[in-house]
Amino acid sequence: MQPMPAAVERHVAHEWIERVRGGRRERMRDELAVEEPLEIRVDGTAIAVTMRTPGEDEELAVGFLAGEGLIAGPGDVASAGPAADLAANVVEVHTGGGLRRDPARERSFHLTSSCGVCGKAALEHVRIAAPPPAAPAPPLDPAIVTAAPGSIRGEQDAFDHTGGMHATGLFTASTGELRVVREDVGRHNAMDKAIGAELLAGNWPLTDAFACVSGRASFELVQKAALAGLAGLVAVGAPSTLAVSLARDRGIVLCGFVRGGGFNVYASAEGVSCAQGE
Amino acid sequence: MQPMPAAVERHVAHEWIERVRGGRRERMRDELAVEEPLEIRVDGTAIAVTMRTPGEDEELAVGFLAGEGLIAGPGDVASAGPAADLAANVVEVHTGGGLRRDPARERSFHLTSSCGVCGKAALEHVRIAAPPPAAPAPPLDPAIVTAAPGSIRGEQDAFDHTGGMHATGLFTASTGELRVVREDVGRHNAMDKAIGAELLAGNWPLTDAFACVSGRASFELVQKAALAGLAGLVAVGAPSTLAVSLARDRGIVLCGFVRGGGFNVYASAEGVSCAQGE
Repeated sequence: MQPMPAAVERHVAHEWIERVRGGRRERMRDELAVEEPLEIRVDGTAIAVTMRTPGEDEELAVGFLAGEGLIAGPGDVASAGPAADLAANVVEVHTGGGLRRDPARERSFHLTSSCGVCGKAALEHVRIAAPPPAAPAPPLDPAIVTAAPGSIRGEQDAFDHTGGMHATGLFTASTGELRVVREDVGRHNAMDKAIGAELLAGNWPLTDAFACVSGRASFELVQKAALAGLAGLVAVGAPSTLAVSLARDRGIVLCGFVRGGGFNVYASAEGVSCAQGE
Repeated sequence: MQPMPAAVERHVAHEWIERVRGGRRERMRDELAVEEPLEIRVDGTAIAVTMRTPGEDEELAVGFLAGEGLIAGPGDVASAGPAADLAANVVEVHTGGGLRRDPARERSFHLTSSCGVCGKAALEHVRIAAPPPAAPAPPLDPAIVTAAPGSIRGEQDAFDHTGGMHATGLFTASTGELRVVREDVGRHNAMDKAIGAELLAGNWPLTDAFACVSGRASFELVQKAALAGLAGLVAVGAPSTLAVSLARDRGIVLCGFVRGGGFNVYASAEGVSCAQGE
């Protein structure tokens, strides 16, 4: 393996995973995008937490503030850097003259999990809010995992027209039956809609089901899976580090890169029925 | 054109755009994913606004509440439906017994634009917060637009390793010079970082620059472009309806589907230097 430049090393973590192909599985090392919470403090007050890849935190903070109209340019930034108390995953911006608007005076919305300021706290937050992991579901059949993205794709009517929609499907874990597909411009929304449809139908918790998402698997999608009691999350794209940590913590099967007849298992591989490879 | 099923029709809108290929452009109709804000009210109190594709709003609301641990199952939902006062883009959930946790008692974070409850209010919000549109920048050269995704791709070190990172690059509009590329698990973060890097370097506003993003163009990314004063936003993927509306309102060039030597111009096509096709 080539040594990585330092900037890349901050962004990438290594994990042991299992690669499944042709009904066999094999242990291998994989590289994952790092995801950690970041608290943005302005003049001593926490105003936002975002799930981000560490590095360039000062840039993220001032770019975020500019994008919200809270600062108007470089003249509004006296300093930006790690928190004075060196709290992990906290970036502090000093404006000198205060923000252009007071975010606390506006409607401030609980749009993301307010999950503390480190990955461990984020896991803990879900552990408290979520029901205990269910008794292990019967192992997922690799053929069912492999077929899931195609089943959803066949139902993605709005994607066919626009090329601009995410989708989430919910499947019965034991049979692979597709129960519901929802599309949305937001990937979180698509998953909320699919889970909400089952909840409104009285099917709850969803311990006999897994979700398949058309994109990547972030911490927040695994959180939604955990709170719904899902047995697994299957992603066409890549998972993040914190998504993997949470899935392992909650005993949720997490598969990624489901493509070309194979996939990777990032968490709870014992939940996938598969012979061990050489 | 085939008539669309009603469910799809809610999700898809038609717009006149310009298709650019081989230095020529042509007016055509395109289909876009609909994006509109939704306010989620619980027992009379607004607790979240999310940018979503209309339809299945009740499912989205209860799925969101479950994913945040605010409701524990169907027993916590007495009713869910359009707001009693029939306010547009508001969904109302009645719990009967209250939420499992009080979101107002937790740290509640200003993580998205709190932009009211209709697309028009969202545009108005940006109009107030953003500087007036700059004097028109010199038109963008189609060859520069076409080359932008490839230039970013060459700098996406962490994507090469993980396949799980979004990227934003900022380019000088007149020369196509790549100024900065930033990667992140979150597409909003990648854009915040790139814009923040320029702000911290004292380059502000970015009226001589355009951004290129590795994914789709949502309302919030165009908002960030507007607040930074960017001349254009170039997306490898599809834009949403509200992204197009905002870019038109602010005079920002918005290109999408930049692939295979061509692209679509969704807004401010006069900002792209190009002969008119037949």
